[in-house]
Amino acid sequence: MSEVELCPRLSKAMDLIGKRWTGLIIYQLLDGPKRFSEMESALPVSGRLLSERLKELEKEGVVARKVYEEAPVRVEYTLTSKGEGLKAAIDGIEQWSKVWLS
Amino acid sequence: MSEVELCPRLSKAMDLIGKRWTGLIIYQLLDGPKRFSEMESALPVSGRLLSERLKELEKEGVVARKVYEEAPVRVEYTLTSKGEGLKAAIDGIEQWSKVWLS
Repeated sequence: MSEVELCPRLSKAMDLIGKRWTGLIIYQLLDGPKRFSEMESALPVSGRLLSERLKELEKEGVVARKVYEEAPVRVEYTLTSKGEGLKAAIDGIEQWSKVWLS
Repeated sequence: MSEVELCPRLSKAMDLIGKRWTGLIIYQLLDGPKRFSEMESALPVSGRLLSERLKELEKEGVVARKVYEEAPVRVEYTLTSKGEGLKAAIDGIEQWSKVWLS
């Protein structure tokens, strides 16, 4: 039996996390809720692409979008429990990068 | 200062691991050395693409290619120490996928 047959979930997880910017978006949010503008200024990514990635992560239930009815309206992105669950994986990648990448 | 400025290595690590098939190739090799044909039959990927990914991982120092001078010649792929270092990250992704993906 193939690995992919054994591990369709692992395959899906790799595709989800591995998509360009997705890991770094989650990494940012592990630090706490962020406004769209904060994330945009912290990543060398267009607003359009960041918005697309955030929508994908919302659809996957990894990120939640919270609207605060203030003036002006404040919108924040935060990790759900599913998103927080990625902490060990992201930490593992970060630790590895510190040891092995120059 | 941006996250990417703070974490160029994390960004590079995400790009490396996130590339399609790369994570699953490393996952397979965490189980032990594999011949090319074993990996090819275990992943729904063309031989050409698998070969390309393995060459990239060799170049990054994550995978080593060992040639055994038998008849016929046997070629095996194995993780280097740098590759083994990804175990925690891959385990983290696998655990998360078991809990959160259906």
